[in-house]
Amino acid sequence: MLSSQHLHDLNAPFVANHEFQYAHLGEVLDQREAASAAGVVEELRRFQVAIPSWALGTGGTRFGRFPGGGEPRSLAEKITDVALLHQLNGSSNAISLHIPWDIPTDVAAVQQQLAAAGLHIDSVNSNTFQDQSAQAHSYKFGSLASTEAAVRAQAVQHNIACIGYGQQLGTKVHTVWLADGSNFPGQQHFRRAYQRTQESLAAIYEALPSDWTMLVEYKPYEPNFYSMVIPDWGTSLALCQSLGRQAQVLVDLGHHLPNTNIEQIVGRLQHFGRLGGFHFNGSMYGDDDLTTGSIKPFQLFLIFNELVDSAQDATVRNPAVAYMIDASHNTKDPLEDLLQSTDNILTAYAKALLVDRPALAAAQEANDAALAEDLLRDAFLIDVRPLVAEAYRQSGGALRPVAAYRQVGHRAGLIDQRGRLAVATGL
Amino acid sequence: MLSSQHLHDLNAPFVANHEFQYAHLGEVLDQREAASAAGVVEELRRFQVAIPSWALGTGGTRFGRFPGGGEPRSLAEKITDVALLHQLNGSSNAISLHIPWDIPTDVAAVQQQLAAAGLHIDSVNSNTFQDQSAQAHSYKFGSLASTEAAVRAQAVQHNIACIGYGQQLGTKVHTVWLADGSNFPGQQHFRRAYQRTQESLAAIYEALPSDWTMLVEYKPYEPNFYSMVIPDWGTSLALCQSLGRQAQVLVDLGHHLPNTNIEQIVGRLQHFGRLGGFHFNGSMYGDDDLTTGSIKPFQLFLIFNELVDSAQDATVRNPAVAYMIDASHNTKDPLEDLLQSTDNILTAYAKALLVDRPALAAAQEANDAALAEDLLRDAFLIDVRPLVAEAYRQSGGALRPVAAYRQVGHRAGLIDQRGRLAVATGL
Amino acid sequence: MLSSQHLHDLNAPFVANHEFQYAHLGEVLDQREAASAAGVVEELRRFQVAIPSWALGTGGTRFGRFPGGGEPRSLAEKITDVALLHQLNGSSNAISLHIPWDIPTDVAAVQQQLAAAGLHIDSVNSNTFQDQSAQAHSYKFGSLASTEAAVRAQAVQHNIACIGYGQQLGTKVHTVWLADGSNFPGQQHFRRAYQRTQESLAAIYEALPSDWTMLVEYKPYEPNFYSMVIPDWGTSLALCQSLGRQAQVLVDLGHHLPNTNIEQIVGRLQHFGRLGGFHFNGSMYGDDDLTTGSIKPFQLFLIFNELVDSAQDATVRNPAVAYMIDASHNTKDPLEDLLQSTDNILTAYAKALLVDRPALAAAQEANDAALAEDLLRDAFLIDVRPLVAEAYRQSGGALRPVAAYRQVGHRAGLIDQRGRLAVATGL
Amino acid sequence: MLSSQHLHDLNAPFVANHEFQYAHLGEVLDQREAASAAGVVEELRRFQVAIPSWALGTGGTRFGRFPGGGEPRSLAEKITDVALLHQLNGSSNAISLHIPWDIPTDVAAVQQQLAAAGLHIDSVNSNTFQDQSAQAHSYKFGSLASTEAAVRAQAVQHNIACIGYGQQLGTKVHTVWLADGSNFPGQQHFRRAYQRTQESLAAIYEALPSDWTMLVEYKPYEPNFYSMVIPDWGTSLALCQSLGRQAQVLVDLGHHLPNTNIEQIVGRLQHFGRLGGFHFNGSMYGDDDLTTGSIKPFQLFLIFNELVDSAQDATVRNPAVAYMIDASHNTKDPLEDLLQSTDNILTAYAKALLVDRPALAAAQEANDAALAEDLLRDAFLIDVRPLVAEAYRQSGGALRPVAAYRQVGHRAGLIDQRGRLAVATGL
Repeated sequence: MLSSQHLHDLNAPFVANHEFQYAHLGEVLDQREAASAAGVVEELRRFQVAIPSWALGTGGTRFGRFPGGGEPRSLAEKITDVALLHQLNGSSNAISLHIPWDIPTDVAAVQQQLAAAGLHIDSVNSNTFQDQSAQAHSYKFGSLASTEAAVRAQAVQHNIACIGYGQQLGTKVHTVWLADGSNFPGQQHFRRAYQRTQESLAAIYEALPSDWTMLVEYKPYEPNFYSMVIPDWGTSLALCQSLGRQAQVLVDLGHHLPNTNIEQIVGRLQHFGRLGGFHFNGSMYGDDDLTTGSIKPFQLFLIFNELVDSAQDATVRNPAVAYMIDASHNTKDPLEDLLQSTDNILTAYAKALLVDRPALAAAQEANDAALAEDLLRDAFLIDVRPLVAEAYRQSGGALRPVAAYRQVGHRAGLIDQRGRLAVATGL
Repeated sequence: MLSSQHLHDLNAPFVANHEFQYAHLGEVLDQREAASAAGVVEELRRFQVAIPSWALGTGGTRFGRFPGGGEPRSLAEKITDVALLHQLNGSSNAISLHIPWDIPTDVAAVQQQLAAAGLHIDSVNSNTFQDQSAQAHSYKFGSLASTEAAVRAQAVQHNIACIGYGQQLGTKVHTVWLADGSNFPGQQHFRRAYQRTQESLAAIYEALPSDWTMLVEYKPYEPNFYSMVIPDWGTSLALCQSLGRQAQVLVDLGHHLPNTNIEQIVGRLQHFGRLGGFHFNGSMYGDDDLTTGSIKPFQLFLIFNELVDSAQDATVRNPAVAYMIDASHNTKDPLEDLLQSTDNILTAYAKALLVDRPALAAAQEANDAALAEDLLRDAFLIDVRPLVAEAYRQSGGALRPVAAYRQVGHRAGLIDQRGRLAVATGL
Repeated sequence: MLSSQHLHDLNAPFVANHEFQYAHLGEVLDQREAASAAGVVEELRRFQVAIPSWALGTGGTRFGRFPGGGEPRSLAEKITDVALLHQLNGSSNAISLHIPWDIPTDVAAVQQQLAAAGLHIDSVNSNTFQDQSAQAHSYKFGSLASTEAAVRAQAVQHNIACIGYGQQLGTKVHTVWLADGSNFPGQQHFRRAYQRTQESLAAIYEALPSDWTMLVEYKPYEPNFYSMVIPDWGTSLALCQSLGRQAQVLVDLGHHLPNTNIEQIVGRLQHFGRLGGFHFNGSMYGDDDLTTGSIKPFQLFLIFNELVDSAQDATVRNPAVAYMIDASHNTKDPLEDLLQSTDNILTAYAKALLVDRPALAAAQEANDAALAEDLLRDAFLIDVRPLVAEAYRQSGGALRPVAAYRQVGHRAGLIDQRGRLAVATGL
Repeated sequence: MLSSQHLHDLNAPFVANHEFQYAHLGEVLDQREAASAAGVVEELRRFQVAIPSWALGTGGTRFGRFPGGGEPRSLAEKITDVALLHQLNGSSNAISLHIPWDIPTDVAAVQQQLAAAGLHIDSVNSNTFQDQSAQAHSYKFGSLASTEAAVRAQAVQHNIACIGYGQQLGTKVHTVWLADGSNFPGQQHFRRAYQRTQESLAAIYEALPSDWTMLVEYKPYEPNFYSMVIPDWGTSLALCQSLGRQAQVLVDLGHHLPNTNIEQIVGRLQHFGRLGGFHFNGSMYGDDDLTTGSIKPFQLFLIFNELVDSAQDATVRNPAVAYMIDASHNTKDPLEDLLQSTDNILTAYAKALLVDRPALAAAQEANDAALAEDLLRDAFLIDVRPLVAEAYRQSGGALRPVAAYRQVGHRAGLIDQRGRLAVATGL
C-alpha cells in the first residue's frame, strides 16, 4: 500500500495540466448542458468493477504461458493486489473468488484484511470445468448436465458449497459458468442435456439464500467445440425464468458469435429485467480475454449507453447489475492490464453519461437517423479523460494509475517478495 | 401437366437400375434393422414441403438480376408451376403466398385450380418491408415497430388483411417476417422498438382465428445492417410466449450469425414446444438463399436428426411443423432449383430416419463420443437415393425429377407461352 | 452553390465556440509535441476523398428501396451535388464515374462544369456485373472470367472503352471490380476461372496508358455466394504482380470475412508497394455500405494509423493512394451521409496524425505492449473536431457541414427542382 | 502389434457383409464408368497421412485437460502407437515430430523401430511458441519476428537444429508454424514484423538441404488475439515466393476466418504450384482441432475434389503434397480419434475419385450450374465405405479399424503398461 503522501507526490507533476484540462472540459460541458463535469465525476466515483482473483496472475493459452513473476500465491496476496488497484483508481472495491482456488482458510483474517482495504467479496464462482485432485467423479463429460446422476450431484454440491463460502465472506452473488457441451454431433442429446441442466440449477437455486442472486452465464463455444449447453442469451434467459426472480443472466463480452450486436442483447435483457451481471474483456475473434475496450471501444460505449439509458428509465425494472472484469493477461503485467481495463470502462461510462438523451429520444421518434447517430457520436468524441482522472483524484487515487504503478516499481517489488516463478493459485 | 403415360415413359430408362439399387438397399437396411426401406419410403411420401410463390421466378441481388424467361405472371401461372413440381416429385403439395403479390382476384377459380392439382395454400406471408404504390404510409423506417402510430396501424391492418385472404383460400398459417431495424447506432431505441413490435403483434394475434398458427421469424441482419428488431430465436421465442400458444417460432436456415449451431436451436425450440416452421435454403455466408443442402448437407441432416428425434419422443409436445422452401434462384432455372432443394431435403430426412436411435441414446448415456458420432455418420453415409426415388415413383412422379423436367423441355415451353421477358409478380 | 457570404452567415453562430475550442486544443497539442494544430489542419486540407457518382441517390437492398426525392438525373446534376459537398467541406474535389451510367454526352460541357467547381474525375469504374439493354452477351455467368470467349471479349472491350472515357475526362485511374464467381460447388473451375481472369485483365492492362493506374478490387462474397474469382487481397496481389507495376490492389472496407484485421492488410500491401486505393464505408456484418466510421471508428483510426505510418517512412515505396467513398444510403439523405462519412474519415486521419510515432516505435522495440497500446489510445481519445472544423473553414467551407446543409434546406430545393420521384441513373 | 491371424480373426465376422457390399458397389461403379472399384482401392492404398507425435495423447484447452490414461511417454512409445494405427488401416505410414519434444536420443534404435513397423518420419516441426527450461531467451514477445536480434537468432538456430534432427532420421520436410503476433493494436509494427520474419525464414532456408521442402503455415489468430504475423495464405505465399522454390504453403483446415472457402484456396495454391502440405482436422468455430471430417464432411470432399482435379491435370506443376493430421483429442481416445480421422479422409478421397470429371468440365464450360453441382453431389452421395474397407483389407489391416481396436482392448492394455496418469511428452 502507498501512503497518501506518496500518492500525492506521484500526482504532483500532472496536477497543473489536469486542472487546466478539467476546467476547460467543465466549461465545454456547461455549454452543452446534457451533464455537468461534477455530476459525471460523482457517477464515476460510484461505479465499481470487481476484480477476479484469477486475473491477478499471467494467463495463457493452450499453446503456452509466459509468466511475468511476482504473482500472488494465496488469497491474502490476491487481496493485497486488489487493494493496490483500488488505492490507485478508487474503482475496484471488490474481488470475485473462484472456488476451490480461493477457499478461505481463516475467514476472520480475510474479513479483516478486506475491511482494512475498503474491499468486499463481489461474488463466488463455481468451477466444474476442471477436475480437482480429491474429486470423486470427473467432469470430463460434463457436470450439471452430466448423464450420470452422481456427477450432477457432486457438481450441485460444489455449487452449494460455493454459496456457503460466500456466506462466510459476506457476498450475495453466486455465478455459474457451465462449460458443459459436446465436441461432436451426436455426442450429447440436446434436449436431455438442457433438462438435466435445468434440474441441477434448480437444486442449486433451492439452496440460494433469499437475498442472493444467482448469475447464469452463456458461451457459444470453448471448451467444447460443437455445442455448449448454454450457448446464448436466449438459453440463459429461459433457464433463469424457469428458476425464479433471483436468477439473472450474466453477459461476458467475449462470449458471442462473430458480428453479434451485444448492446442490443443488453437492452433486451434489461427490458426483461434479467440483466444480472457483466464480465468485461476485449475481443477480436472470440473469448480472447483481452484488455476491456482495447479492440472495440465504440462497442463498449454503446453498451454503456444502454446501461445508462435503462438506469434513467423508470419503466425499466432491472435490479442492480454486478460488474466484473474477466480477462486473461498473456503479454502485459496483469495489474497494469486491470488498471487499463478499468480506465477504459470508466471512459466509456463517462461518455455514455454525456449523451443528450432527450435530444436522442426526439431524433429517434422522428426517425432522423443521421441526427440520432450524431448525438451518440458527439458524446463518444468528447475527450473525457479529465473526468476520469478527477474521479481518481477525488477518491484519493492516482491521476494516472498505470504511470504511478510503474513509477513506484511495484512489479519489481512483487518479484523480490514473491519470486520470479510465483504462480497464482488456479493458473 | 404431364400425362401419367408420359411420366411412365420418362421413367422407363431408369427403372431397371432403380429396382436393382432399391432391392440392394432394402437388403442392407434389413440387416441393419433400424428402419425398413418400405417404412422410410412411406415417411418420405408423407413429407410435404411448401413452395413459395415468389421463388418461381428468377431472384437477384442488389447488384442485378438475370431473368431466365418464362416466369409466371399471375397467381394462376404460379399454381401451374407448383402443380408441375408436385407432379414430378409428389412432395410439393402446397404453395405459400405473399400478400399483396398474390392477392386472389377470383377465389373460386383459384380453389378449383388448386383442387385439380391436389394442392393447397400452405400459408400467407405479410410484406411490410416494401412500399406498395397505393400505400398511405411508408415503411422506410419500420412497420410494426415504427415510431408512428399510423404506420403501425397500417402494418397491423395489412397483416389482418393477409389473414382474411388466407381464410378465403383455406390456409391456417400466417407468417410474419419483420424487416424492421436500424442501420446506425442510436437510430432506434432497442427497448421501445421491441415493445411497439410486441403490441403490434398482439393486435394481429387478436385477429387470428383460434385454429390458426402465427409464425414469427427472426434474422440478425439485412435489410437493416446495424440491428434488427427480431434478430435471434431468443427474441422470437419471447415474443411468442407473450402472445399465446398459437404463436410459434419460424427458423430460416440463412438467418443466423456465422458458425451458429442451428440444429441445437431446433432441438431447443422443440423442447419449448415452440418450433412452428422452417424456411429451407442453402447458406455459405449469410442469407444467401441458395439451393437447400447445396453447401452444408451434413448440417441439414443434423437438423432432420433433431426433427425425427423429437417426432419419436412422446415427451415432446411440439405441434406439427410447417415446412417451406424460401430460396432465391439467380443462376439456375427456378423450377430445377426447387426440385433439387426438395430432393436434398428428402435425402436428409431419409438419412435421419435411418439413425439407430436406441443405440445412439445408449452411446450418449455412456458418454461414448466416438460411437455416438459414428452412429450418426453411419446413417449419413448410406446412399439413400433409391428410397427417395421410390417415394417419387410410388407418388406417381418421376424417378429423376430434374432429368424428366429437362427431358420434356419444360422451360422452353414456358418461354414460348409466357415470353422471354416475363417477370414473376413481386420480383 | 452557396455564396461565400451565405457560408459566412451559416458559420457565424458557431465561430466563437469553435475558436474557443480550437485555441484550447492548440495549447494541448503544443504541450504534447507530436504534432501542431496548424500542421494537422494543413494535412487535413490536403486530404481529398472522391465521391462516387452512384452514391448520390438512395441505394437499397434486394428487399426494397425507399427513395428520398431530388436525386440527380444526369451526370451534370451529379457534378452539381458533388460541387455542393466540396463547397461545404473542401475535401471532396473529385468524382468517380461508373460506365455506362455516366457516359458523358458533351465532354467539353462536363469539363467546364468540373473546372468551375474545382472538381476533377477521380477514376472510371467498369460495370460487368449487370446486363445493359443493348448488350450482345449476358454476364449472367461471368464477364472477364466467363467460359465464353465472346463474353470475355465484350467485357474487355467495355473496360477499354471505360479507359477511353476516362481519357476524355482527364482521369488516370481505372477501377475493376470483378463480380464473377459461382453460387454452387462445381459450378466454376477455380483454376481455369482464375486463368481466364488473368488473361482478360492482361488484355485490359495492355490498353492502359503508361501514366495510368489500374485498381483490382477483391470481395469474398456477393453477388455470388459460393465463390468469387477474386475473394481476397492475396488473389488481387497475385493478379497485380502478374500484370505489372501499374496494377494495384484496391481495399474496400466492407469486402472482408468476419473478424478480418483490415489494418494489417493495409500495412502489408504498402510493404509490397501495392496499395492502390480505398473504398471507404461502414460495416457490421458484410458489405453493408454504411456511413464510413459509423460502426467501427477505432478500426478506421487504426487503418489511418497504417497509412500515416507508411507515408512517413522513407523505406516504403508505395505510390499515392486513391481514396473514395463507396457506400449505399438507404435511410439517410445521401448527401448528409457523404458529409458524415467525410467527417469521420478526416477525424480518423487527424487522430492518426497525432500519434507520437517515435515513442510508439520505441515501445514496440521494447515489447512494451501496454505502453504501445496506450500511445495509440492517447491519440484516439483526443477530441480533434476543432481541427477538422478549422480545416473546413480554412477551405472556405462550413464549420458544421451537415448543419449548414440542413439550414439552407438543400434537400427540399432539390426535390422542388428534380421531383420527388427522381431516380439517379444507375440505381 | 497384432498378429495377422489376430487381424484375420477380427475381420472374420464382417467379411461376408463386406464382400456383399463391395461386389454391389463394384457393379454400380462399372455402370457409372467414371472409375472402377479396384482402381479407387488402389489409389486409397497409396494414400498415406502422417500422424503427429503430439496427437497421441489427450490434448486439452486452456480451461483444463482430462487425460485418458496409457499415453506414450517417449518417442519409442509414440512410434509404437503409430505402428498400431498403421497396422489397422495401412494408411498411416509416417510420423511427424515436434522438436524438442521428440529429440531422438538413440537414432539407430529409432530407425530400427521405424523400419520394423514400415514407418518413416514425415517431417520435423519447430516449436518457438513455448519456452523450454534451458532456453536463453524467451519467446513471450515473438521468435522469428522478435524485435531482439538474439531471440531471432535463437529461433533460427532452433529451426536449423530441427533440420539436423530430421536429417538424422531421414525426413526431407521441415514445417514452420509461426505463432508470433500481437494481442493489442500498436504492440507490433506490422511491416517491420513481416520483414524480420522474412529475414529469419531466409536464414533457415539457407540451411535447408537442396532436396528438402520447407512448409510455411498460416493462422489468423491464437495464440495471439489481435494480429498474427502470418495470418493468411496470401502472406504465406508471399514469404514462400521470396524464399525460393523449396518453400511451400501449408494449409491447416482450422486456420481460417469464419466462412472461408478453403477449397478455393487449395485450388489457387496449386495453380501457383505452392501447395506444400495439409494439416487435417475438424472445425466448427476456429482452430477446434476436432476429428477430421466430423463437422463439415462435404467441405472435406470439396477439398479432395480440388486435390484430385489438380493431380489429374497435366498443366498443374504442384509438387507432391504432404498430408498430416493435426488434431487435439479432448473427449475421445486419441487413437480412436486418429483412426476415425483417417477413415473420414479416405472416404472423402474415394468420393472425389468418383467424380465424373469430363462431364463436370463440360457442365462448367456450358455454365450448367445445376448439372455441375449435381455431378459433385452424385459422387458425394455414393456410399464408398466398401472401398475404404477393401483398401484396409488389402493392406493387411482391419475391415473396421475402430471396432478392432476396441475388440482387442488396446487402451486397457496401454493403461496397464504405461499407467493411468502417463502424460505424453509435450502435453
